Amino acid sequence: MSAVDDVTRPQNVRLSDSGRAVRILDQSLLPNRTVYLELSGLSELYEAIASLRVRGAPAIGIFAGYAMYVLSLQTAAEDAGSFLAECRANRDYLNSSRPTAVNLRRMLDRQLTAAQSARGGGIAEMQRAMLRTAEAIHRSDIAMCRAISEHGLGLIKPGDSILTHCNAGPLATSEYGTALGPVFLAHERGIPLHVWCDETRPLLQGARLTAYELQSAGIDCTLICDNMASLVMKQGRINACFVGCDRVARNGDTANKIGTSGVAILAAYYGIPFYVLGPSSTIDPDCPDGAHIPIELRDEEEIKSRFFASPTAPPEVRCYNPAFDVTDHTLITAIVTERGVCYPPFEASLSAFFKEAET
Amino acid sequence: MSAVDDVTRPQNVRLSDSGRAVRILDQSLLPNRTVYLELSGLSELYEAIASLRVRGAPAIGIFAGYAMYVLSLQTAAEDAGSFLAECRANRDYLNSSRPTAVNLRRMLDRQLTAAQSARGGGIAEMQRAMLRTAEAIHRSDIAMCRAISEHGLGLIKPGDSILTHCNAGPLATSEYGTALGPVFLAHERGIPLHVWCDETRPLLQGARLTAYELQSAGIDCTLICDNMASLVMKQGRINACFVGCDRVARNGDTANKIGTSGVAILAAYYGIPFYVLGPSSTIDPDCPDGAHIPIELRDEEEIKSRFFASPTAPPEVRCYNPAFDVTDHTLITAIVTERGVCYPPFEASLSAFFKEAET
Repeated sequence: MSAVDDVTRPQNVRLSDSGRAVRILDQSLLPNRTVYLELSGLSELYEAIASLRVRGAPAIGIFAGYAMYVLSLQTAAEDAGSFLAECRANRDYLNSSRPTAVNLRRMLDRQLTAAQSARGGGIAEMQRAMLRTAEAIHRSDIAMCRAISEHGLGLIKPGDSILTHCNAGPLATSEYGTALGPVFLAHERGIPLHVWCDETRPLLQGARLTAYELQSAGIDCTLICDNMASLVMKQGRINACFVGCDRVARNGDTANKIGTSGVAILAAYYGIPFYVLGPSSTIDPDCPDGAHIPIELRDEEEIKSRFFASPTAPPEVRCYNPAFDVTDHTLITAIVTERGVCYPPFEASLSAFFKEAET
Repeated sequence: MSAVDDVTRPQNVRLSDSGRAVRILDQSLLPNRTVYLELSGLSELYEAIASLRVRGAPAIGIFAGYAMYVLSLQTAAEDAGSFLAECRANRDYLNSSRPTAVNLRRMLDRQLTAAQSARGGGIAEMQRAMLRTAEAIHRSDIAMCRAISEHGLGLIKPGDSILTHCNAGPLATSEYGTALGPVFLAHERGIPLHVWCDETRPLLQGARLTAYELQSAGIDCTLICDNMASLVMKQGRINACFVGCDRVARNGDTANKIGTSGVAILAAYYGIPFYVLGPSSTIDPDCPDGAHIPIELRDEEEIKSRFFASPTAPPEVRCYNPAFDVTDHTLITAIVTERGVCYPPFEASLSAFFKEAET
């Protein structure tokens, strides 16, 4: 039985049928083309993350687990030491693909630890340990998304309208999603909700992915440009904001898709609760605050020409294209993980989680 | 001598050389194609406004003046009464093209008044009065933009960085522009400034027009997506926000391009001054506050497919596409018109202007 037999929705990330490649839905081509890729080479695995063919911190984590396993099958090493050195090099290379999210590094590290722990059994046993770990990462993400969805659903009422930014739905994770999890769960239970989707420039994950997956599931949604959220909030049409996260610092400062901090400031201004939803693996206890989270800068052409029929500005015009921003913890109403809802002060409520996890 | 002989920059809106059409630079095709149109039919004049071939409240006002004159030349009326009835019908039809800005209605009304005042001289005299009025509107816009630019320049220091939203530069007006006027004036005087341009979805006026005209003039600028302003402000890289306006209510509430209110809320949060710049004709003394300003809703396809190589979301996905929003007067540091800088409370400072104008 495969680890993902219990998955009820189509999988965006899984081990290929051959067991020697990672199979992904290429999110960069949605919603116009549905293309699955089977990837096994180091550079194509790296490129899939860097080019956002696979994206969403939890999905990248699952991908990283399988990628490390698939790469381990291609080893030319004849002893455990060389095998581990290869694993370490693969980890370092894949980790450099996207700097902001913490899940990628965590899951790569988890695979290295799994291999190290099985060192006594030789290369074959280390490979088996990495397969078990990849499946465990995947299975645990499914369980976490369900739990996050339940906790998140407790924060809203039937008939509410949610604003979301970017995509933290099934495509970004393994099943329900994180920020969209409560919405998918509510829909299954016949609870009516409405979702306002920020289109999320420059890569349009809100339009291409969130509106697409809500629409496909028959969930009521309306697409807006990012700069329309202020007006819709002012009109009293939004009851809560639900966003995902790529890294949460110890004090609650949260890195997420560029524009998230702006949504949080608007929500605070209009008195609308602003919730961050994500697996507890997104909380980085080594990171004291948002100033310590590296912000990925991406290619200017994503702003000026990607997706457009003609360039939107002359070629000489300089662009600044940060992929993430940090939302100050003072703007966050609560952080929802699979373990429950954390309220401010986050330094205390988040660290209680870590203490629990250690015991 | 033509009224626009004193114009030093290329004109986006003027009377054609034949004197029987309005000549415009088609802004909807910029920056990739530079196409001038000569328009004289009622429906094509209407369409040019509705499709944003001509845009920017001041430029629309100038266009409206010439349009009313050009249409008046096509009259089949044999008496002043029928001629005025035609003028009134033209005014009502053109006025319905865009509801939010007040300049369009004002300049259409001004032409009707000019015709009425010259009624005694017959149709030919009424037409001549309308030509003089169109030229006066144009000339006065040039003078107003210069004065606004001078007043605005007094609010910033050499080396400052300005954030602007949408386009309120030369393309939106007759010469320097309103919100960008101080920047063009500073550039002429060798004062260094930097401009951050919000791309301004969905119609990308910031990318297509503002970045284009700053770049063409050799003014230092950086293009960002709308949702990046919060991060750039947080980084301390913005000293002031300069935006234009489409209608200012008596209490200072200001309608401008969708997203402006969001920029103002971010600026207030980060403690950055937020200035509204426009001719005093944008202040509507009949409008008590922002709740009385109609907000134009535009076609959903502007969000999902306009400018894009492929649609950004499935065709069934619903969009909400308001073209403007209202910035609450409490978020505005000052309103700059050709007569000077108005500070809060705006109800008093703006009404002092009207009293002055009446005396």
